[in-house]
Amino acid sequence: KKSYKVCCLPGDGIGPEIIAEGKKVLAAVGAKASVEFACEDALIGGAAIDATGDPLPDATLEAAKASDAVLLASVGGPKWDSTDPNAPRPEQGLLRIRKGLGLYTNLRPVKIYDALVGASTLRPEVIKGVDLVIVRELTGGLYFGRRERFYDEEGAGANGGRGQRAYDTLEYREYEVERIARQAFEAARKRRGKVTSVDKRNVLETSRMWREVVHRVHDEEYPDVELEDLLVDNTAMQLINRPADFDVVVTENMFGDILSDEAAQITGSLGMLASASLGDGVSLFEPSAGSAPDIAGQGVANPLAQILSVGMMLTYAFGMVEEAGWIEAAVERVLNEGWRTRDIADENTSADHVLGTSAMGDKVVVAL
Amino acid sequence: KKSYKVCCLPGDGIGPEIIAEGKKVLAAVGAKASVEFACEDALIGGAAIDATGDPLPDATLEAAKASDAVLLASVGGPKWDSTDPNAPRPEQGLLRIRKGLGLYTNLRPVKIYDALVGASTLRPEVIKGVDLVIVRELTGGLYFGRRERFYDEEGAGANGGRGQRAYDTLEYREYEVERIARQAFEAARKRRGKVTSVDKRNVLETSRMWREVVHRVHDEEYPDVELEDLLVDNTAMQLINRPADFDVVVTENMFGDILSDEAAQITGSLGMLASASLGDGVSLFEPSAGSAPDIAGQGVANPLAQILSVGMMLTYAFGMVEEAGWIEAAVERVLNEGWRTRDIADENTSADHVLGTSAMGDKVVVAL
Ligand SMILES: CC(C)[C@H](C(=O)O)[C@@H](O)C(=O)O
Ligand SMILES: CC(C)[C@H](C(=O)O)[C@@H](O)C(=O)O
Repeated sequence: KKSYKVCCLPGDGIGPEIIAEGKKVLAAVGAKASVEFACEDALIGGAAIDATGDPLPDATLEAAKASDAVLLASVGGPKWDSTDPNAPRPEQGLLRIRKGLGLYTNLRPVKIYDALVGASTLRPEVIKGVDLVIVRELTGGLYFGRRERFYDEEGAGANGGRGQRAYDTLEYREYEVERIARQAFEAARKRRGKVTSVDKRNVLETSRMWREVVHRVHDEEYPDVELEDLLVDNTAMQLINRPADFDVVVTENMFGDILSDEAAQITGSLGMLASASLGDGVSLFEPSAGSAPDIAGQGVANPLAQILSVGMMLTYAFGMVEEAGWIEAAVERVLNEGWRTRDIADENTSADHVLGTSAMGDKVVVAL
Repeated sequence: KKSYKVCCLPGDGIGPEIIAEGKKVLAAVGAKASVEFACEDALIGGAAIDATGDPLPDATLEAAKASDAVLLASVGGPKWDSTDPNAPRPEQGLLRIRKGLGLYTNLRPVKIYDALVGASTLRPEVIKGVDLVIVRELTGGLYFGRRERFYDEEGAGANGGRGQRAYDTLEYREYEVERIARQAFEAARKRRGKVTSVDKRNVLETSRMWREVVHRVHDEEYPDVELEDLLVDNTAMQLINRPADFDVVVTENMFGDILSDEAAQITGSLGMLASASLGDGVSLFEPSAGSAPDIAGQGVANPLAQILSVGMMLTYAFGMVEEAGWIEAAVERVLNEGWRTRDIADENTSADHVLGTSAMGDKVVVAL
């Protein structure tokens, strides 16, 4: 019997509640497919700060590296907000595990479920049929460049302001652009065959290099894929104007952070979106939404994104594409039957169809 | 009789057509208010490249500096797209005039006209009542930081990719944050008294400084204004989720570029939005939309954003707030009477109410 080790990171807020449902579904798939998934929990984020003072203890990174895949829930919360700039912050755990595992590709599929078209603030005819994936570069750019703050006598004198000065560096190397471009073209081949590459070429040098390299990789290796360039400001508009036109959108780290959240929000159902972070080794899977500290511990959080992240794990970490399809079909079926967690319920949902976190997980297991 | 010198920059694409309507309306206001506006044209963008090889000839910058206000239409077009990285580009004219005039504040009001609620891809109940202004820092950050591209032997060897390497620098000095924060708080005092300051504090050092400085200026000088912080990715979501909640949104240059276009698009009627760029000297006013080369020369472009930019000029450059109100009221009246240019016409617009550029300008003049 085949067996996989999964490193589970519950993290903070609703994290522990939703990851429990992810494990439930993973176990159910394992039973049906005769595969063993051995889950082991490790600490990250605020929970890790509380226990060890470090948002990513060495033991966690080691456990992640020794596993076949990492399932993350969510990190962060007001408890760890601090005015002390040197205090450890939960998100550092996230940034460090990305870098530590070399997860340079973040895949964020944005798909609208027919049953949830009403959740969007966009008109139904605009949002219907949206099915795109943002391919975000995840270990470069402003996130990991050199940064500094210092006191600048000169600046202060010349301009009458106080003299602080700070900078961050947006840096890319050619091979970093090459490999993320390949990921985008590969994704497009499995989808509708179209890539939109997003940059700010009219201003940034990194964008000019980005565009050249993406085109070279395209022309040399993926001439069969359709490639278009779009400026980042224009992309922010077109995602609202004609979201259904996009297939694969590839971009650098910070643009990807902004655009993937924008694209997620057009669906209106953030609690349904999962993401995969891939590199050359172990991969990581998580829901797109945050730790929602305001509803933590109440048993009302939506576990479907976490469950769908398990589906992505099956596809990308274990090559179990068929089994991933079971999960997607089960989620779709549960939605079509009218079952909702509070966040995706609306005036058409009868009160007895609003489920808690665990009951929703059970529904998916039954539908499997 | 009072007299003002206005430096007019028609630029490219639909620029010359729409600026003609702006001048028409300016002349009409002048006649009614007994003020003389002397307009003189100068070259910028592609038109300036064609005539002089330079997207911002010295003569233009001199003329702008010697004027009381600058009225810009739009720059750019495929004609000047070039694969040669050293070829002059129309947008450089824009970036250089911003820097040359010290225009560090970009005000982009986003307002939905009741008559145009249907133009938005957002649901009417979500978009109704939207009335916000993006205050974008315009002369700092990634736009004007040090940038470079070079060949890096080491990077190439270690990672198997080709060895190009590029960087851009996101840099801010404290006084730059201070002065833009003041602009935002001042704007809020004249509006609904609320500022949303947008940053990426969980990643960027410049954002951490940004947040500290904005709060210091708030606490010391504007404690009466309500201030909230929002991360840039979350802002990209909330602009779609609850746009009517925002009043003044202040942010750094690149975030402002992306978010102001996103905010503009939620209205669905880009052809209605104007912007003002202010500094310590002469100010510049322009429509928010681009040069639309695809419809240039056809006499169908929407001149209303240009006309509204004349309104902003009256307010910000000449302190003629009442007269600016005339223009806004006239535009609103023309819309309420059902007159439309092609871009804002819909299935409810009767064919005889679809106007060309010049006819629309005439309607506004009559309504004045
Ligand atoms: C928490 C934060 C550092 C992170 C990011 O900006 O990458 C988050 O917004 C995300 O998109 O996963
Ligand atoms: C043309 C371009 C350089 C410019 C910018 O990015 O500032 C434009 O997008 C704008 O917003 O005015």
